[in-house]
Formats: sequence, C-alpha cells, structure tokens
Amino acid sequence: MKFCSACGARVALEVPPGDNRPRHVCGECGAIHYVNPKVVVGALPVWEGLVLLCRRAIEPRHGYWTLPAGFLEVGETMEEGACREASEEANANLRLEGLYTLFSIPHIDQIHVYFRARLLDRGFHPGEESLDVHLFRGDEIPWDDLAFPVVHKTLELWLEERESGRFRTHTGDIVRRPGSRAWPRFTVRSH
Amino acid sequence: MKFCSACGARVALEVPPGDNRPRHVCGECGAIHYVNPKVVVGALPVWEGLVLLCRRAIEPRHGYWTLPAGFLEVGETMEEGACREASEEANANLRLEGLYTLFSIPHIDQIHVYFRARLLDRGFHPGEESLDVHLFRGDEIPWDDLAFPVVHKTLELWLEERESGRFRTHTGDIVRRPGSRAWPRFTVRSH
Repeated sequence: MKFCSACGARVALEVPPGDNRPRHVCGECGAIHYVNPKVVVGALPVWEGLVLLCRRAIEPRHGYWTLPAGFLEVGETMEEGACREASEEANANLRLEGLYTLFSIPHIDQIHVYFRARLLDRGFHPGEESLDVHLFRGDEIPWDDLAFPVVHKTLELWLEERESGRFRTHTGDIVRRPGSRAWPRFTVRSH
Repeated sequence: MKFCSACGARVALEVPPGDNRPRHVCGECGAIHYVNPKVVVGALPVWEGLVLLCRRAIEPRHGYWTLPAGFLEVGETMEEGACREASEEANANLRLEGLYTLFSIPHIDQIHVYFRARLLDRGFHPGEESLDVHLFRGDEIPWDDLAFPVVHKTLELWLEERESGRFRTHTGDIVRRPGSRAWPRFTVRSH
C-alpha cells in the first residue's frame, strides 16, 4: 500500500497514537488503513459416502484438487459463502451439516472454515474456476495432488472420523516458517 | 474507497472479468481492491465461577460492558489474538480452553470467534481501552449494559451450559435488517 484510498496522497508506515503496531497512515487526511486477515469458507460435500473435489482452473495450484472454498464476501454469512462457493466452483447444491474445521493460517493471513455438507443431487459440473469436479471414494482421494495443506488435513480428519460415525469440530493452526518450503506444522484441537 | 492504494489513481466500481460482483478497480494500473469481512477474536475468561468483563473506554459503546475481544491482526493465530486482546484490554493472563462461539454478523461485515478461557491470576486491571475490569457472578451480569448482542448471546449460552458442566461449540448468525434499531435475529447451531 503506497497511496491513501480516501484522498490519493502518499501513506507512511507509522504507529498511530494509542496503537502498538505500524499501520499505513495518510500524511494528508490522517486516515489509518488497517490490513487484516481474510476468511476463506468452504464445504466438504458428501454423496453416498463419496467426497466431492474440484480440480482448480486458476492459480495458485492450477490443476490440483481441492474442496470448494473461497473468500467470504461482505454481506453474507459463512454458511451462505460456503454454499455460494460450491455453486460457483462445482454447480453443486448443498445442505450444510455443521462446522467441521476452523484453522488459523497466519503465514498467509487467512483463517479457513469448512462445513460438512450433504450433496443434494448429482447435477454438479465444473464452474469457471474448475477444470473438473469428481466424487472420490475415501481410498481414491488424490493425496499427492491436493492443492493445500488445510484441505489435506480436513479430508484426513473426515476419513478418520467417519469410521466412528461421530464428527467433532476441530480447530487449530497451520504454521509454516517464513521462506520454508517444508510441509507446515499442524496443531489440532478437537471438540 | 476513491483512489488506488497501489498507484494513487481514481478507482471505479465495476465487475472484473470472470467475477460476478462490483469491485473497486483502478483505471490506471488495473489493480482490483477487494473488501472482505474482518475477524474479531475474543475470550470468555473465568475465575472460580466468575466471568471477567471490561467496561469500554472507546467507541462504539463507550461505557458498556463486554468480553475482551478485538480485530485479528495479520501474522497471528485466532488463539494468539484472543490472548493479546485480553492482555491489552484487561492485563489478563489466560489459558484458552476451546472454541466456544463462532458467529457471522453480516450487517457489520464481521465474524466473531470466542474461546472459553481460564483466568490464570487476579492481577488483571484496565488497559487503555477499558474504564474498568470486573469479575461478575452469573446473577450479577449487567445484561442491560452489555455492549454488543454477540456478547449477550455468548454469555447466555455459557450460563445455560455451565449448569450441566458440558460446554459445546456454537455457530450461528446475528442478522439485523438494514436501518433497523431492533434487537437482531439470532440463529444458533450447537455441536
């Protein structure tokens, strides 16, 4: 951020009075421009024991498989956002069944929220952001071709728990050291 | 938003190619400026059955009581943010005990996350953003002087559940019609 979105003047990084960390502050109009983490909402859609995944037609991770998910928009609830993303990416109609995973991913300034969901029909097909949409058996999930660690962990928890038929809610962190290419460190608490 | 934060030129509201809603797009450099909901993280700190509330020294709702909470900052986890806010607003040392409530509040473009917490000592005292910090018995909670509906609902759930000794996780929506001053509509799902 270099310019003030309110008046167009240059901004500088400084600690505003009463604050304790640097913010982008406008030298002209005094506006303080906060930058905050974004919320990604998604679903784990299931049809007769099969899980729906989308193959990404966009970067990042073009060509890799993921759960339908995307940025929460202003004016919508997390559940509405999760259903909208499933509709946009997979033309999938869902009924959500409860909060499943909630992760902080501080190195990319995101939190991710996934809901368990029932797929209401088999009319799904790829939206503009997907190359393919497919229902996978548990033993067919393309683990080496999943797009994101948070999707890997959410699917892993679901596979573990569906044996018991009891799904808990899981919260945690996914932390990768700056500059590292290694698999991130997961912390998961189950409720 | 009137100016591009990347180049300082005027922005216009238009639907970018491949998108389906208006965004602020720069007429010069083409940057798209997305606006997304913010995350508020907080805690419900308990000491020997008493709950810690802070009386706000800042707007909105100056002078009203609230749970310690504030905007999640970049680079931190939700749990780190909840502990930081309790420290800043009440100089309170907490050990978090699990996700308690997760609410979408679409009319103010926020999601709120509260963790149950154990207060580790009685060394709390007001930070800069608080007029007072106090431990309340369940029957002393100042219901008419609480700052926000989400705090009211979170405390209400906690009071109901502590009888049973079993705390679930609750997700839901708090929706107020545009322009309405009425108490909002709550939807709560318990896991």
